[in-house]
Amino acid sequence: MSTLARRPGPSVRTRVTQHTDDGVRPHEDRLATEEPLEIRLAAAGAPAERVWVTMRTPGHDFELAAGFAVNESLVAPSGIVRVAYCTDADLDPEQEFNVVTITVAAATDIGHRHVAQSAGSSACGVCGKDSVAAVLDVRSAPPWPDAIPSPAVMRGLPDAMRERQPVFDRTGGVHAAALADADGRLLVVREDVGRHNAVDKVIGARVLAGEPRSAACLVVSGRAGFELVQKAVASGIGSLVAVGAPTSLSVRLATESGLALFGFTGPRRCVQYA
Amino acid sequence: MSTLARRPGPSVRTRVTQHTDDGVRPHEDRLATEEPLEIRLAAAGAPAERVWVTMRTPGHDFELAAGFAVNESLVAPSGIVRVAYCTDADLDPEQEFNVVTITVAAATDIGHRHVAQSAGSSACGVCGKDSVAAVLDVRSAPPWPDAIPSPAVMRGLPDAMRERQPVFDRTGGVHAAALADADGRLLVVREDVGRHNAVDKVIGARVLAGEPRSAACLVVSGRAGFELVQKAVASGIGSLVAVGAPTSLSVRLATESGLALFGFTGPRRCVQYA
Repeated sequence: MSTLARRPGPSVRTRVTQHTDDGVRPHEDRLATEEPLEIRLAAAGAPAERVWVTMRTPGHDFELAAGFAVNESLVAPSGIVRVAYCTDADLDPEQEFNVVTITVAAATDIGHRHVAQSAGSSACGVCGKDSVAAVLDVRSAPPWPDAIPSPAVMRGLPDAMRERQPVFDRTGGVHAAALADADGRLLVVREDVGRHNAVDKVIGARVLAGEPRSAACLVVSGRAGFELVQKAVASGIGSLVAVGAPTSLSVRLATESGLALFGFTGPRRCVQYA
Repeated sequence: MSTLARRPGPSVRTRVTQHTDDGVRPHEDRLATEEPLEIRLAAAGAPAERVWVTMRTPGHDFELAAGFAVNESLVAPSGIVRVAYCTDADLDPEQEFNVVTITVAAATDIGHRHVAQSAGSSACGVCGKDSVAAVLDVRSAPPWPDAIPSPAVMRGLPDAMRERQPVFDRTGGVHAAALADADGRLLVVREDVGRHNAVDKVIGARVLAGEPRSAACLVVSGRAGFELVQKAVASGIGSLVAVGAPTSLSVRLATESGLALFGFTGPRRCVQYA
């Protein structure tokens, strides 16, 4: 099976058949694009090594790669020299925009949690750990300042994010994540078929902008599973605001890590779990 | 960080704080349990080898392990001799119910797609493949008979499944999957924080019941991403009925594999994508 044409956009047109009580009719629909992205890591002058494959929605690929590498403690934000599509001569031309290489200044910038030879789906967050113990081994960065918007501000964040989800508007098939400051200003919003990719993209956007620590609150359009809490803790996020439910393990990790965790957040209420 | 107490149930009680226009009040809530499950594979008489770690909702763990192994072509359904919690003396007692070993009759029953040393989250489906090419390499089983319920029957399946989701009723935080026959009878319904775990559980339930090919239609409560289509194709499922949207790659794989793929399925309509 081969992938779609080169440089796909975040959504594609497709012909579908709709079945209702009024009968059957063909019409045109839009699908969220899902394509594999391979992330490679290299010290300057050394060969690149594959560290991850994730199914993602194309767009903001460099942010995704940088955010993933930082959130997984593979590289320090300050160590990143360059992020670019791979230009290896032996790369299948169809994969030209599906392989991203992160170059760091020196081999010492590559973290010890290197997850070589592993791969993830559009929704992975704990891949590459090779045992139960490794999955639960979460390192945290120092918390960002101005950590927690007021609950009243927080309740408005999902709707504010929703207004900036063009791919969801077209397809109904992608998650979103955003970073907000304590006053509820959205600093960056990203979409992806994988909820953890959306989180990697927003954090990667701040990393590549050289402002990895200038936002406090992570907003996600779905549930707050363990892997999202894990990324928030690893990045030093102060609060995680989810539209959906958290899980037992995400509440436990948030509590142990000092992360403020809110679920079922909407205009009328939010529920604080940690 | 350690895990929850031994033998956790599918949901746990927790104290939360709810913020609304009427003020702040504490109350008790229920969370979906999320815990790691390590899956090991062994030929009878040989040592077991770790093949996977997934974040899952405890319950039906043997079905999850068997379904995962079969869906990933690690073992043939007929090769499974025994599925049991690991009893290794050196296992951390807290992990007693978080490690499952599948025993097969002979080493030749273990497939070539062995994903040793990899791990997945509650939402993974393509972990363990080590490159873009490997992710897209999907093998299919012969399709099951009586493949496709009529669209009118199909539109009733999500509501029928919804009536059998006790963990969702309590927590609002889990996905569900079901297998149905062509007449719309639900044969098995399972819940999990990970949508692909729920799919592994329903297929594993049929595998362990010795009836791996007696259902035709897979119903899922969320979107139909690539990894779910991949599992359906690998298992020879005839039709996949999703409540949410499919993606570009899932439609492409379904089309190439002859899987009937329906999205946005509910009482009033369903949309056929492949």
